[in-house]
Amino acid sequence: MPINENDINTMKSLFPYIREYQKLANKYKIEDVFQDNGGKILQMFLFTGLSPLGGREGNDARDDSGQEYELKSVNVKLTKSFSTHHHLNHDIIAKYRQVPWIFAVYEDIEIRKIYRVEKQAMEIWYTKWEKQLRNNGEMPLNNPKIPLTFVESNGTLLFDYIQAPF
Amino acid sequence: MPINENDINTMKSLFPYIREYQKLANKYKIEDVFQDNGGKILQMFLFTGLSPLGGREGNDARDDSGQEYELKSVNVKLTKSFSTHHHLNHDIIAKYRQVPWIFAVYEDIEIRKIYRVEKQAMEIWYTKWEKQLRNNGEMPLNNPKIPLTFVESNGTLLFDYIQAPF
Repeated sequence: MPINENDINTMKSLFPYIREYQKLANKYKIEDVFQDNGGKILQMFLFTGLSPLGGREGNDARDDSGQEYELKSVNVKLTKSFSTHHHLNHDIIAKYRQVPWIFAVYEDIEIRKIYRVEKQAMEIWYTKWEKQLRNNGEMPLNNPKIPLTFVESNGTLLFDYIQAPF
Repeated sequence: MPINENDINTMKSLFPYIREYQKLANKYKIEDVFQDNGGKILQMFLFTGLSPLGGREGNDARDDSGQEYELKSVNVKLTKSFSTHHHLNHDIIAKYRQVPWIFAVYEDIEIRKIYRVEKQAMEIWYTKWEKQLRNNGEMPLNNPKIPLTFVESNGTLLFDYIQAPF
């Protein structure tokens, strides 16, 4: 299509606010709100009070006591299950096993709910994936999923958009 | 850390503008600006005049003549090479081979340049990856990279932030 100057101008008029949003995200060590759900993870930190971990390895967040957490989000307009890891192996499982998980539910870019699932409840997944790795000749698993229904049934609700819409 | 009400209020005050940015992105079939560089791909469409393709398969954009294009972006603050595909195989190469590539260069969320690289110039990568697949027992390649220096040397500059900063 031809260059749409109106749309370019709309984008340019909104971009200063995006920069402010990015600046806020930088306070939480999120370098790029447009990648890896950065703009959503900011909201997960804000609404849970968790802090970001330094570095790109290891788990994703920690609380004041030093307990770490794995963070995941899903867009329920696209899929009803959470992604995990594109090359899931025993090392990743060992890392997962040490922490509770925080799951955020989005409709497109709108946050709806945040759940916490304890280590013990997550164990059924690790057992299942370990079995799959063995049956798979120890080839890494390509992004095994965790269904939203599991999170709804086994999680504690930490945040609900209905109670504080914005 | 404790819940930071100031930061929550800042986020809430900026979010209406994010929603407007998302609404503009929806015009270009980008459902989620926070994922897969959605908020950047919007700018790539705006500044090249390319249209989005329907569906998540196949190539990423087309021009008025129907020619399709593969779109890639890089954040040069994080890395100096473009990602390709996490499970690159012969089918993906066959798809890539049919189209010119559009490469966008970002510093964090700020667009700097857009380049176009023709099919013929891209061929050296396909040849290289096919050889790697053969040497790798036809196991998919995990995200082989294309260096920015290659794109700078072989591409045509379509957009330069310096000439139209915003």
